[in-house]
Amino acid sequence: MPRFFIAASNLLGGVACIDGSDIEHLKVLRIKKGEVFTVCDGKGKDYVCRLKSADSKTAEAEIIEVKESVGEPSVFCTVYAAFPKAEKAESIVQKAVELGASKIVFFPSARCVSRPDEAAALKKCIRWQKISEEAAKQSSRGIIPEVLVNMSFEKTIALAAESEMPLFFYEAETDLTLKEALCQKQSYKTVSIVTGAEGGFEKEEVIAAKKSGMYITSMGDRILRCETAPVCALAAIMYHTDNL
Amino acid sequence: MPRFFIAASNLLGGVACIDGSDIEHLKVLRIKKGEVFTVCDGKGKDYVCRLKSADSKTAEAEIIEVKESVGEPSVFCTVYAAFPKAEKAESIVQKAVELGASKIVFFPSARCVSRPDEAAALKKCIRWQKISEEAAKQSSRGIIPEVLVNMSFEKTIALAAESEMPLFFYEAETDLTLKEALCQKQSYKTVSIVTGAEGGFEKEEVIAAKKSGMYITSMGDRILRCETAPVCALAAIMYHTDNL
Repeated sequence: MPRFFIAASNLLGGVACIDGSDIEHLKVLRIKKGEVFTVCDGKGKDYVCRLKSADSKTAEAEIIEVKESVGEPSVFCTVYAAFPKAEKAESIVQKAVELGASKIVFFPSARCVSRPDEAAALKKCIRWQKISEEAAKQSSRGIIPEVLVNMSFEKTIALAAESEMPLFFYEAETDLTLKEALCQKQSYKTVSIVTGAEGGFEKEEVIAAKKSGMYITSMGDRILRCETAPVCALAAIMYHTDNL
Repeated sequence: MPRFFIAASNLLGGVACIDGSDIEHLKVLRIKKGEVFTVCDGKGKDYVCRLKSADSKTAEAEIIEVKESVGEPSVFCTVYAAFPKAEKAESIVQKAVELGASKIVFFPSARCVSRPDEAAALKKCIRWQKISEEAAKQSSRGIIPEVLVNMSFEKTIALAAESEMPLFFYEAETDLTLKEALCQKQSYKTVSIVTGAEGGFEKEEVIAAKKSGMYITSMGDRILRCETAPVCALAAIMYHTDNL
């Protein structure tokens, strides 16, 4: 069924009011009067609608059914990725959203090759947010995951450490496997996935993450590229928590 | 430690003989006399070597230690991917090798947008094989996974069905989750992962796969892109089989 996002404020009293750029979605998807489609409020709810009327500027549809978006996992995973080179960041956003991440945060680390200043990073965020929306539509997500930048390594780690399952991936770690980390607790609603840039992390950064309470975790014996690591971690976590 | 592949025939009598294009690796990695590096025979064994002599055409190194390549998983996973568009095929090869696939096979299916003839597909295979080698080096694999094409859907399915854990991923499947499929048997050494192209599979193709004995398997409620599906499946399987 055709599917796109509209603002929750346009879904009231059994009627979906479609206007602005959302009218384009109806046109692109070639939805005609009487046809059924789904709009999502971006807050985890899907509205099955039947198109009643449409002109070039507005359209009205009857809401037939309201249900939870099936694409939302039961865990809120935030991917914290050290700034990679440009096209890799786009790949991380796209794949992470497909695989069920709920938020993506880019941050600087000592060995980052790409070091945007705050203005450049915020500009990039606008593009990343669009990629997130496209991926959310395509993969049937119930929310459009936010893409943010945090210009402080320390603050990023402090935030990441607040989740119930705070994972810091380090390629030289051999003590704790991902499975061992995920089995440390019986259940959790929030997961942090921290991964490095092309050059990995400095030892001092790993020590800081450990001090903050994060689990320093291995992702096995194969060295993963910086854009593959968060994707691999997400897939394994979704599998472990029965969200795959 | 610097690491590259050389032919097993050049690893004899405690000495590694490096010649031909492998001399380039020594130069690129700036390895000097007395320095230690690892060569892999591409058959799952790593040879730790110390460089004894080198000129522009040949080099000799003493083999200090022979060990199993740690990057090889305990399961032999073959990814069978329906021909996707060009850059997606390259992404599948690179990521699949990083995540531990042992072989990658591209094949035609009814809804493939990309439909190379055999000559074009074989030409592409040469490029894909190079991508496999690069990914194997980068990710510390012990083999260079083969990349093949099979121009028959039926023959591909027959081959895929021969593995001990034959998984055919279908987005409209809701009965069998990946976890349920992987738990059908206590242990297995070979896994097939069959995934569709941009347009998914036709119902008839799914029926044929089921008849051949494959498990028709879901990958959850989020619709994955054709280049994401095999990566997600591999990560979950490596996690399940303790290879992550």
